[in-house]
Amino acid sequence: MADITELSNIISDKNRLVFAPSIEAKYLSDTLGRKKGSASALVFPVSTEEVSAVAKFAYENRIPLTPRGAGTNLVGSTVPHDGAIIIDFSLMNKVLELDKENFTAWVEPGVILEDFQKYVEGEGLFYPPDPGEKRASIGGNISTNAGGMRAVKYGVTRNYVMALELVKADGTVITVGSKNRKDTTGLDLKDVVIGSEGTLAIITKCLLRLIGKPEKSLSLLAGFGSLKAGIEAVPKILKANLNPTALEFIERKVVKLGEDFLKIKFPLESEAYLLLTFDGSKEEIDSAFAKLGEVLKSSAEKIISLDDAALAQNVWRIRGCLVKAVEAVSEQEPLDIVVPISKIPDFVEFVNELERQSGMQMISFGHAGDGNVHLCVVRGSRSDAEWESELHANLEKLYAKAHNLGGLISGEHGLGVSKRDFFFKETPAENVALMNSVKLAFDPQGILNPKISYVK
Amino acid sequence: MADITELSNIISDKNRLVFAPSIEAKYLSDTLGRKKGSASALVFPVSTEEVSAVAKFAYENRIPLTPRGAGTNLVGSTVPHDGAIIIDFSLMNKVLELDKENFTAWVEPGVILEDFQKYVEGEGLFYPPDPGEKRASIGGNISTNAGGMRAVKYGVTRNYVMALELVKADGTVITVGSKNRKDTTGLDLKDVVIGSEGTLAIITKCLLRLIGKPEKSLSLLAGFGSLKAGIEAVPKILKANLNPTALEFIERKVVKLGEDFLKIKFPLESEAYLLLTFDGSKEEIDSAFAKLGEVLKSSAEKIISLDDAALAQNVWRIRGCLVKAVEAVSEQEPLDIVVPISKIPDFVEFVNELERQSGMQMISFGHAGDGNVHLCVVRGSRSDAEWESELHANLEKLYAKAHNLGGLISGEHGLGVSKRDFFFKETPAENVALMNSVKLAFDPQGILNPKISYVK
Ligand SMILES: Cc1cc2nc3c(=O)[nH]c(=O)nc-3n(C[C@H](O)[C@H](O)[C@H](O)COP(=O)(O)OP(=O)(O)OC[C@H]3O[C@@H](n4cnc5c(N)ncnc54)[C@H](O)[C@@H]3O)c2cc1C
Ligand SMILES: Cc1cc2nc3c(=O)[nH]c(=O)nc-3n(C[C@H](O)[C@H](O)[C@H](O)COP(=O)(O)OP(=O)(O)OC[C@H]3O[C@@H](n4cnc5c(N)ncnc54)[C@H](O)[C@@H]3O)c2cc1C
Repeated sequence: MADITELSNIISDKNRLVFAPSIEAKYLSDTLGRKKGSASALVFPVSTEEVSAVAKFAYENRIPLTPRGAGTNLVGSTVPHDGAIIIDFSLMNKVLELDKENFTAWVEPGVILEDFQKYVEGEGLFYPPDPGEKRASIGGNISTNAGGMRAVKYGVTRNYVMALELVKADGTVITVGSKNRKDTTGLDLKDVVIGSEGTLAIITKCLLRLIGKPEKSLSLLAGFGSLKAGIEAVPKILKANLNPTALEFIERKVVKLGEDFLKIKFPLESEAYLLLTFDGSKEEIDSAFAKLGEVLKSSAEKIISLDDAALAQNVWRIRGCLVKAVEAVSEQEPLDIVVPISKIPDFVEFVNELERQSGMQMISFGHAGDGNVHLCVVRGSRSDAEWESELHANLEKLYAKAHNLGGLISGEHGLGVSKRDFFFKETPAENVALMNSVKLAFDPQGILNPKISYVK
Repeated sequence: MADITELSNIISDKNRLVFAPSIEAKYLSDTLGRKKGSASALVFPVSTEEVSAVAKFAYENRIPLTPRGAGTNLVGSTVPHDGAIIIDFSLMNKVLELDKENFTAWVEPGVILEDFQKYVEGEGLFYPPDPGEKRASIGGNISTNAGGMRAVKYGVTRNYVMALELVKADGTVITVGSKNRKDTTGLDLKDVVIGSEGTLAIITKCLLRLIGKPEKSLSLLAGFGSLKAGIEAVPKILKANLNPTALEFIERKVVKLGEDFLKIKFPLESEAYLLLTFDGSKEEIDSAFAKLGEVLKSSAEKIISLDDAALAQNVWRIRGCLVKAVEAVSEQEPLDIVVPISKIPDFVEFVNELERQSGMQMISFGHAGDGNVHLCVVRGSRSDAEWESELHANLEKLYAKAHNLGGLISGEHGLGVSKRDFFFKETPAENVALMNSVKLAFDPQGILNPKISYVK
């Protein structure tokens, strides 16, 4: 048996090393706090060398490791298991280099998204990934391949990661990727680490790609007679290369929830809405707006430009508050199912029908431009037992429907430990086997996040 | 020992199965034809089932497999070894589905790039990857993660691959990826296959992402007093978000070669040039042109718009003919070194200096927007022995310099069997080891392209 207190030979600063049972409860869970795990130690490293030494110790003693960013995940991916050592990156939060000639930045993984966005914008640059939770860490964003609002135009976190310094489970330090824009020099090890939820290696440095800051950004709201009519306009918008930054859909009944929660009004009465943002120069935005008018002429009931700042803010506040509006009323299960864009109406119709049949409230909205449907399944007044069994039954139906439509369990939140059953049900055994072979190629003893859903 | 003639139980059509020694020489090499390998059989499958059965046979009998697209690679990556079975995809060349609602197409790997580009453009859609060799196959493009001219704006082949149907070395068929725009449902197995030069799995179907066809496209030529002045303008162009489709640099002395070869004139006299293309709506292009004028005001000697079609064609013909212009005079070694954008002047200066010192002609030009420098090292009148030893000595210096600048051996052509020594010299042992572990996770007996440079 390992003597866990030997960690103090690696992390000698007492403020940066905590042993069970003194570990605060929040470190044993995710942001929802429903699933609790067990850990033997919590470390706050300040350097790659410390992370490497901790990993080596864990590897030699076969102790599980749980990397932790800001802990904002919704799927239990930071729940430690079997007396794991939690490696918290909150102190490794420095921007190490801003290279304005090559449009890159080297950062430590604990840098907070929002701080980084502000910093680079102050320098006339722009980091496009923009998931909802701005207090997440860059390391967490990379480990979950975070998506968000601007993904329609700019892509997801993956598209902005150029290189990673990694500590492997045995403590080896390697760098995958580089500051080069193109690379066919051997296997692409970087991309398989992105989105791997801490199961392949620990990220200790990140090289991010930046772009020039767009001159301005403007939103626009279009009302439709039905969700179907709204969604049917989406391929037309894409085909016309209008290149919106954001392209969200919301139904009237969902807007209503936000209005009631915030006590403000949406500026347009329609059954369903598309909410779009464009960024670029004034001319580009004007030209996109004009073309959008053409494209939506026969389908939209009304289109209003949100060039009034207060108006725009209200609309986006309503869009932004929906999860909270639901949570204020009841516990909920947040899903992030993704389906091919053309299947959104089918899927949302199914959700509405299931809501009627099951009597369980389901609130859906999301990214029409990329098929990512956010769905809050609401507990209401159910007892623990009712909630557990009814939720499980409904999730099975929702995931099966998504699967039938060619969709997936998770578009951006990841699997964590929460989606295990569903993942195994809907992923061919050959794919699961290959994922596990690759996991073992990186981490032969399987000590890194060994309970994440896909790990056998 | 395996009885190779048993393959006729799988491929019964005699026209689609050839045994050694009847295999035509071109199948034993790449497009340069300098390196020759050995194969026991050449098959032309027409279905995934046939590919799977051939792989199973090879796996059981431990016979190497060499997948082959159009054979246009420049690095020996289709040179078969040790009596391999060559799987040629030229008969699997159908577009299986065009999904206009989701902007995707399922194609077989043998579809030829140029045919596919024309087909989708006829449907108002656009497939952005555009490497120089238009007769390459989609399967080959994916296996080399092909780059090309439009990569500055649109990215490389990787960015347009949504899913792959794969036959593993043991014959198992799996699909990685999907028609969904976002995916964090387990490990990203797709991206590690892209660019793996046939070492991980055999691609039998490809799901490609398309975009709307740009309205128009227009080029522009800027002349500078020095290459350095031209390259220094590049970050300014990128920062201003002008988003050129192509952003090429050429030096005067290189243009001269093209002029002499084609007997046409370049429309501008300067030491060095940037050649840019913009695509989009008329307004977008006009606005980009106007801004470009601003950005280059203090650095460019002159800027001319190539809106005259004949003029534009001449300029692009000269840019396009450079490799051929060199080859018409002498054998050459084509390199595709990539360096961080800001290092292009340092690297090109080094090349020019090495040319003077070594007396070996070196012609460089390339993609300023992504740091990919194409370099033709020219044999001239050297004997076989002189060419071999002098070339090797110069390559060592070129790759070492690129490495010192943070660059890589290959930006888009891949490693093939040609770059083995240099790859091992410049890649940390830990990275090589991890690539080999991943290779074995996919292909435990190591039968797929076992001589590609990184394979131990
Ligand atoms: C209100 C709200 C809105 C949200 N909106 C979005 C959204 O729009 N899009 C979206 O994609 N997500 C969203 N999320 C989910 C969450 O914010 C993201 O998954 C985020 O990327 C997690 O980052 P984190 O730093 O909190 O990581 P954590 O929660 O700490 O960890 C997440 C995973 O990454 C691993 N990890 C963390 N750091 C490292 C490291 N350095 N090395 C290796 N592994 C590491 C962990 O082990 C874990 O598996 C939202 C969450 C909330 C609460
Ligand atoms: C004049 C000229 C210009 C060029 N310009 C460019 C350029 O601008 N950018 C660029 O990137 N490249 C360029 N190339 C290189 C070449 O065209 C590319 O590498 C191309 O992608 C190769 O495609 P192919 O079909 O010819 O593949 P092949 O040469 O047949 O094979 C290439 C590799 O892919 C593997 N492979 C092929 N098909 C499959 C399959 N179905 N499954 C698994 N593995 C497979 C092979 O085993 C091999 O390792 C150029 C070549 C020439 C001759």
